[in-house]
Amino acid sequence: MKPKCFRVVKPEIRVLGVDDGKFVPHVKGQVLVVGVVFRGGYWLDGVLHTRVDVDGFDATDKIAAMITCSSHCKQLRVVMLNGITFAGFNVVDIKALHKVTNLPVITVTRDKPDLDEIREALKNLPESERRWKLILDAGEPLELSTRNEQEKIYVQATGLSMGDAEKIVRLTSTRSSIPEPLRVAHLIASGIGGA
Amino acid sequence: MKPKCFRVVKPEIRVLGVDDGKFVPHVKGQVLVVGVVFRGGYWLDGVLHTRVDVDGFDATDKIAAMITCSSHCKQLRVVMLNGITFAGFNVVDIKALHKVTNLPVITVTRDKPDLDEIREALKNLPESERRWKLILDAGEPLELSTRNEQEKIYVQATGLSMGDAEKIVRLTSTRSSIPEPLRVAHLIASGIGGA
Repeated sequence: MKPKCFRVVKPEIRVLGVDDGKFVPHVKGQVLVVGVVFRGGYWLDGVLHTRVDVDGFDATDKIAAMITCSSHCKQLRVVMLNGITFAGFNVVDIKALHKVTNLPVITVTRDKPDLDEIREALKNLPESERRWKLILDAGEPLELSTRNEQEKIYVQATGLSMGDAEKIVRLTSTRSSIPEPLRVAHLIASGIGGA
Repeated sequence: MKPKCFRVVKPEIRVLGVDDGKFVPHVKGQVLVVGVVFRGGYWLDGVLHTRVDVDGFDATDKIAAMITCSSHCKQLRVVMLNGITFAGFNVVDIKALHKVTNLPVITVTRDKPDLDEIREALKNLPESERRWKLILDAGEPLELSTRNEQEKIYVQATGLSMGDAEKIVRLTSTRSSIPEPLRVAHLIASGIGGA
């Protein structure tokens, strides 16, 4: 698929921020995943949710369905994920997510992913090679800073140029170093997850 | 208790907005209640939750505990409820909530409470007189408008003057006719309630 090219990033661009709630690691179960529809870095327009298996393989399909089944879908212009692993090592195939939703996908993390550590942790899980491949496929993260030069964040982009991803990440980081849709998705998922 | 007197309402006054999620009326069960900590009408600072019984009597205690057990409690200056009935007719005793939390309580609704209709509906429930008394005790709602002169809202206040309640309601209605902490609590509770 051809990457989406943003001629202009509108201040109220509709962004879906996605994060997961708390869970007990390595214990079979489902984890709340929250999607927040934001207008740029300003206003909450809606809240979606789904549930994914701890260390499972359903995060891509569940998040895609959460988006495509939502009444907000047509307004959305980009999806932002808090990293590509949900509920432990339920890894999102961001290329497949882009393809199914027809939306560019940006991942943002506060820490630089430590690939050696991840590879080691994956050894304890079934189908570790399949998970590892998805992690490598997501591409090398770009280091950048938004509001505070000292606070680095790490960004991956699929379905749009890294330049456009950077613009959108900066535009939506209105309150902290993290884009507001992800900051709020985190507050909601961690405040309610386990409910 | 002496009502709290606000010499000045700070633009970033910490407000807790409380609303409930979806549920099947008259069917025994628990309903998600969400509390959002907001800075004035601008930023989400945290998300709390509890669960209350459909048509039960635990809303006052559960909401009070959600507030007093939260790490945000000391920063909060006022509680805003989307009306005084949660999960059907689980009526909040707003005077008791004020007393236990030591915080002023403001209720806001879009529609003027229809007391005749409420009285009629209560007849089908156990301890209808007890519920009815709590509804009357909450006092006559004041009609006012915030951003749009045509859109009326209805406000009750306990533990602060109606003048201060009006100031806080207007200050926090940054996005719509409803205070932002309640608009967002509603989006979250209805987006996740039933999860």
